Amino acid sequence: MDYEILVVGTELTTGGARDKNVHYIIENLLKVGLMCKEITIVPDEIESIAESILASLKHTDILLITGGLGPTFDDVTREAISKATNKKLVFSPETAGKIRNKFKEIHKIKTDKLMPETILRQAYCPEGATLIPSSLGTAPGIILEFDKKLIVALPGVPVEMHKMLKENILPFISRKYPAKEIILARTIKTYGVGEIFVEKNVEDLIKKYSGATITILAHPEEVHLKFLIKSSDFKEAQNYLSEIESNFVERLGDAVYGFDGDTLESVAGKLLKEANLTLSTAESCTGGLLAHRITNIPGCSEYFLGGIVAYRNDIKQSILGVEETLTRQFGAVSAEVAKAMAERVKIITNSDIGIGVTGIAGPTGATKEKPVGLVYIALSSNSKVEVEKFNFAGERETVKFKATQRALILIIKMLKERKHA
Amino acid sequence: MDYEILVVGTELTTGGARDKNVHYIIENLLKVGLMCKEITIVPDEIESIAESILASLKHTDILLITGGLGPTFDDVTREAISKATNKKLVFSPETAGKIRNKFKEIHKIKTDKLMPETILRQAYCPEGATLIPSSLGTAPGIILEFDKKLIVALPGVPVEMHKMLKENILPFISRKYPAKEIILARTIKTYGVGEIFVEKNVEDLIKKYSGATITILAHPEEVHLKFLIKSSDFKEAQNYLSEIESNFVERLGDAVYGFDGDTLESVAGKLLKEANLTLSTAESCTGGLLAHRITNIPGCSEYFLGGIVAYRNDIKQSILGVEETLTRQFGAVSAEVAKAMAERVKIITNSDIGIGVTGIAGPTGATKEKPVGLVYIALSSNSKVEVEKFNFAGERETVKFKATQRALILIIKMLKERKHA
Repeated sequence: MDYEILVVGTELTTGGARDKNVHYIIENLLKVGLMCKEITIVPDEIESIAESILASLKHTDILLITGGLGPTFDDVTREAISKATNKKLVFSPETAGKIRNKFKEIHKIKTDKLMPETILRQAYCPEGATLIPSSLGTAPGIILEFDKKLIVALPGVPVEMHKMLKENILPFISRKYPAKEIILARTIKTYGVGEIFVEKNVEDLIKKYSGATITILAHPEEVHLKFLIKSSDFKEAQNYLSEIESNFVERLGDAVYGFDGDTLESVAGKLLKEANLTLSTAESCTGGLLAHRITNIPGCSEYFLGGIVAYRNDIKQSILGVEETLTRQFGAVSAEVAKAMAERVKIITNSDIGIGVTGIAGPTGATKEKPVGLVYIALSSNSKVEVEKFNFAGERETVKFKATQRALILIIKMLKERKHA
Repeated sequence: MDYEILVVGTELTTGGARDKNVHYIIENLLKVGLMCKEITIVPDEIESIAESILASLKHTDILLITGGLGPTFDDVTREAISKATNKKLVFSPETAGKIRNKFKEIHKIKTDKLMPETILRQAYCPEGATLIPSSLGTAPGIILEFDKKLIVALPGVPVEMHKMLKENILPFISRKYPAKEIILARTIKTYGVGEIFVEKNVEDLIKKYSGATITILAHPEEVHLKFLIKSSDFKEAQNYLSEIESNFVERLGDAVYGFDGDTLESVAGKLLKEANLTLSTAESCTGGLLAHRITNIPGCSEYFLGGIVAYRNDIKQSILGVEETLTRQFGAVSAEVAKAMAERVKIITNSDIGIGVTGIAGPTGATKEKPVGLVYIALSSNSKVEVEKFNFAGERETVKFKATQRALILIIKMLKERKHA
C-alpha cells in the first residue's frame, strides 16, 4: 500500500521557508507499512491545491496533506479539499467551541474579546469529513473518505502536526488499512571513506540483495547505507535484514560507526559513558558548535564537563592559559596551538580527555600558507596528545560542521582503540 | 514565466535524507524573474521520474531536475529523461575525458586504475542535449530543449548544484527567456509578537496591498512577513514595494528587527560593531549554541571575544568563578546564577557585555518547581545587570534554540535602547 504527501504553503514555493514535516510523516508511516510514492509542494492557492489533490488520487489511495489549515487569510486547504471533492464546507459549532477554549488557554486570556474572529474559519469542514481537534494549537485536522480513497489534512505547524499524526492519524490508518505487508528499515552509518569507494566495496552485495531497496547517501565526512525490506512475512523479512546487515557490516569493517538513529555525537557519548571518562572542549574556529552538538545528547552531563570558546587569541591565553610564545611562534592556527588548547582545557576542567580545534573557517583570515578550511584538531588524554591536520572545502558553516565531524570521529576512534587495547 | 522543480532521490521519499536544493533554486530563479509553481519529489525509479517529467511539461515551459545524475547504480535521471523525451542516450568521449581527469584531481590519484568504471555512466547524454561539466564533482548537468520546452538536470550534491546553477544555468536561462517581468521580494522580520497578533495588526494593510503576494510565517520567537511583487515595470514595482515596506514597518514598530537575509545574530553583530562594544557568553543549558550562532557571522571576531560552556556546576565555579554558595542557595537554574554567570564572564574575558544562560533543556533534570523549558537569561553591561525568566515549550533542541533566540533578542533590545538613549 502506497500513499502520497501534498505540502501546502506559498512560503515553501517562494523560498520563505523550508518544509519541516515530510521527513517525520515518512518515518512514521513506514512503521505502519506504508511507503511514500511521491511528494508534491504547491502554493496556498485553491486552484493548485485542488488540482494536485485530484492528480494524486488518480494514482494513490491515501493522500496526506499538511499546511493551509490555520486561521489566516492565506490558509485555503479546507476550501481546496471542498472544491476537489465537491463537498461543501459546513460550520461545526462544537469544534468552534473547542477552538475558542484552546485559543484562550494558549494565550492565557479569560474572555473572547481578544480573539480575532478569523480564528473560527478553522471550524469549517467539508461535508461528511471528521474534524480532529488539536491538543496543542487551534487548527483541527481533517479526515475525509472520498470515492473509496482517504484524504487526511494536518496542520502545518510541526509540533501540532507530529502530535496529531501520532495520536490520531496513525491509529486510524492502522485500523482502516491493516498492514498486509510490513516494512523493515535499517541504516548502517560509516565514516572515513568516500561514497564512491563505499559503493565499489559493496557492489556485489548490492546485486546479491536485490530484494531490498538500498540507498547510499553521502553526508559531510560520513556515508550512510539504508536498507528497506517490504514483505508479508515478518520473520522472513527480519532474517533477510539481519543477513544483509551482518554481510555489509563485515565488509565495511572499521568504517561502521553506528546504526539508524545513531549520530557521531551520540556514539561518542555512549563510548565515553562506557569507559567512564569525561570530556572537555576548547574551540576556536568551530565557535561552540562542537560543545553544542555534544550537549544535544540527553544525559551528556555524565561525561561532558564543559568547554571554552577561545575565539580571540587573548582568550586562548587568559582563560585557557595557552602560552603567548606558542601563538607568536607558530600562529593561532597551528598544530602546536591545537595541542596546547587540548592539553590546557583538560587540565583546567580536570577532565580525562581534552579536545582542541583551531582553524580558518573563512571567508576572511586566510593567508597563502594557511588557506580557508585549514583546521588542526588535537586530542589530549592521560596517555598522549595527538593532532591531525585537515583541509576542508566549503563555506564558513560547512567548514565549522566538517571540523566538528572530524573532532567527533577522532574521539570515537580513540575510545574504540582504547577499548580493544 | 513559471517553472517547476523535480527532485529525484529514494533517500528523500524513504526518510533517509532531507532535500537541500529546492530553497537555493527558488531564491536564485526569483532573481531572473522566474516563479516556482510546484515542486515534486520522486524516488530513483525511471518510471516515476519519466511520468513526473511528462506531467510537469504539460503545465510548465521550464523544468528543473536535481539528483540522480551521479555514477552509482541508482542514479537513473539520465535514463528517465531519455524515456520521457524518447531521445536515446549517447556516449560523449569528450565528457568522459573530463570526468576521468576530475576524478583523479578530486581523489589525488595519478592513474585511472583506482577509478570505478561505473563513473563513466555519467558521460551518457540524451541525444541533442548539452552536457555541462561540473567544476567541483564528476556529475555533469544536462540541458535539453524538447518540444519548445526546456529540461535542465543538475547534480544532487548541493555544492555542485549551487555552482552549476549560478555559473551555467542562470546565464543560459536569462539569455533564452529574457525576463518580461521582474520579481521583487522583501522580507520584514519581527520578534516578540505572535503570528496571529501580527496578522491582526496588519489585516487592513494586507487587503490594501493585494497586488503583492504576502505570506506571514512563524518561526520560534520570530514572525516574518514576505512580500513578492511581479511586474513588467521595474520602477513601478520598486515604488509599490517601498510603499508597502514603509507602511508595514511603521505599523509593526519596535517589533521589526531586520530585513531579508538579516538574522538575530547578524543584527546583534552589526549593532555591537556600530557601538564598538565586545561580547562574551557563559552558557549552561544552551551548551555552546549561542556562541556557535554568533560565530556563524563572518567578521565576528571584531566584537565576540569568546565564551564558556559551563555545563557542569563545578565548571561554573572553577572556571567562571560563580560562588558555590549561590548555586547551593538558589540552584544552578536560577536568576541569581544566571546573573553571576553574565557578570563573571564579562569580568574574566574583559568584555563590555556578558551574557549568561542557565536552564533545563530536558528531557531529564526537571523538578516540580523547575520544569523542562525553564530558562534564565542575564545580560551584564557596564551600567547594569538584567535577568529574564522564560518557559519554553518543546523538546531539548527546541528549548536550546529558543533560549538562544531570546538571548540574541535581549542583546539587540539593549543595544537599540542604548543607541536611542
